Amino acid sequence: MKLLSFLSPLTHEKTWGCVKNDNVYDLKKQLGDNYPDLKSAISNNILSELKQLKLEYPDYPLNEIHFLPVIDNPNKIICVGMNYPEKRKEFEQSTNAPTLFIRFPDSLVAHNEFMHKPNSTNEFDYEGELAVIIGKTTSNVSKEIALEHVAGYSCFMDGSVRDMQYTWFTSGKNWPKTGGFGPWLVTSDEITDPQKLHITTSLNGLQVQSESTGNMIYSISYLIEYISRFSKLEAGDVIITGSPGGVGKKRTPPLFMKEGDIIEVEISQIGKLKNKILDC
Amino acid sequence: MKLLSFLSPLTHEKTWGCVKNDNVYDLKKQLGDNYPDLKSAISNNILSELKQLKLEYPDYPLNEIHFLPVIDNPNKIICVGMNYPEKRKEFEQSTNAPTLFIRFPDSLVAHNEFMHKPNSTNEFDYEGELAVIIGKTTSNVSKEIALEHVAGYSCFMDGSVRDMQYTWFTSGKNWPKTGGFGPWLVTSDEITDPQKLHITTSLNGLQVQSESTGNMIYSISYLIEYISRFSKLEAGDVIITGSPGGVGKKRTPPLFMKEGDIIEVEISQIGKLKNKILDC
Repeated sequence: MKLLSFLSPLTHEKTWGCVKNDNVYDLKKQLGDNYPDLKSAISNNILSELKQLKLEYPDYPLNEIHFLPVIDNPNKIICVGMNYPEKRKEFEQSTNAPTLFIRFPDSLVAHNEFMHKPNSTNEFDYEGELAVIIGKTTSNVSKEIALEHVAGYSCFMDGSVRDMQYTWFTSGKNWPKTGGFGPWLVTSDEITDPQKLHITTSLNGLQVQSESTGNMIYSISYLIEYISRFSKLEAGDVIITGSPGGVGKKRTPPLFMKEGDIIEVEISQIGKLKNKILDC
Repeated sequence: MKLLSFLSPLTHEKTWGCVKNDNVYDLKKQLGDNYPDLKSAISNNILSELKQLKLEYPDYPLNEIHFLPVIDNPNKIICVGMNYPEKRKEFEQSTNAPTLFIRFPDSLVAHNEFMHKPNSTNEFDYEGELAVIIGKTTSNVSKEIALEHVAGYSCFMDGSVRDMQYTWFTSGKNWPKTGGFGPWLVTSDEITDPQKLHITTSLNGLQVQSESTGNMIYSISYLIEYISRFSKLEAGDVIITGSPGGVGKKRTPPLFMKEGDIIEVEISQIGKLKNKILDC
């Protein structure tokens, strides 16, 4: 099932729903205010019930909605750095534990919205990544059962201001509207093995990253085990699992995003996240 | 003025107020539900009005309240690493920009509460720091006017799990109830120059850190300018300005916190934050 957050074309208010055959079903309209947003639906554990709903009359065509970030108000967005061998080689990094940094929710941007390139940077780089959306309270779980705590998976574009990333990642990764998140999540029951997905990133139609999630250094299960040891995860929290190699900073010559560029992240079994770059 | 968050001894509900002569005045009781917590009072810009209040009849003696973290629900807690020359020497660090990491609000712990030492670590270290509480929306401000955006100052104990801090700080700094924050904030009108405060940290009465905030590498004004360039700060957000040298990890022999220890951070013109360590 593909679940998403969006603005209703009728009321222009925030709502959420599911996508089927290029149509959108408004599930807030159908289920009422008990579930005002997708995060509340996840935390109330109704995803399996949603599958029982009869979806007969779509509310809107997909191309008429204004997308929101899949979850636009996560409590915690935890990002993993240097989680593919090629990326590590490019940045000459080696560590014996996951490299974790944090994004604030106001750094997110939705599918089809403009992604904001700060006009003070000439090094606005792309990193296409798999996002994991947590489904229920997760504290001290072992990797063997970690995936049971996942609501679903989505695409993420971790827009990175490289010339503000000298030291710790915080300042390069938290500019407003630099973290593309969408277009929807695919529920975990439909993704048999999240380590067998293929990620490609394209800049103006040119493929710049191509990688299997099977090559992650730390698997999704292990990341959930590791993070939930020190910080409780809850429904709607997001883990961004790291970028493959091929980023613009390490190309010869470097290749950065500029105004008007189209950046896309496509992940098999999920879909394609697309953003146009706007200088801000 | 000393402002704080606490549980009412009468209702056991969350409230906030001010401290004067070892007495607490419950300002939520006095001002009503328009200002349910200290963050809302700050964001509604009523701190200067509070000074006009007649404080005749205290509500509770100071020693009868249960403290909460000064702000227990900040949207953003941004921490500065390696901001004193002695600390940099100890960790052999050099950078040309502030080193920033993030704490989640659920890592905070109040004055007089138990600070939780994870039982999986033998390296639970102390870092006494000055906390800056933002007073109003702060975006792209210059350092010349940055301090006008500060509501007040408080003490912070940045309890650090060193053996989970191999790579980026996130995993060593986000364990539950490891960030002591209190006992109160002193409003910025009473701190003429926040770069002329003295911080001391004591472990079981033994002074282990002693430093002037004048020795910060990046001043508070500059930090606010730098952070507000990439991420909007709002009322109640917190900047933790970094630890002086003298931390336990770099002593010979190392000196870490263990169950039953008393850790205190005292800052001139502000007060003293005290926590007892509990193995969890």
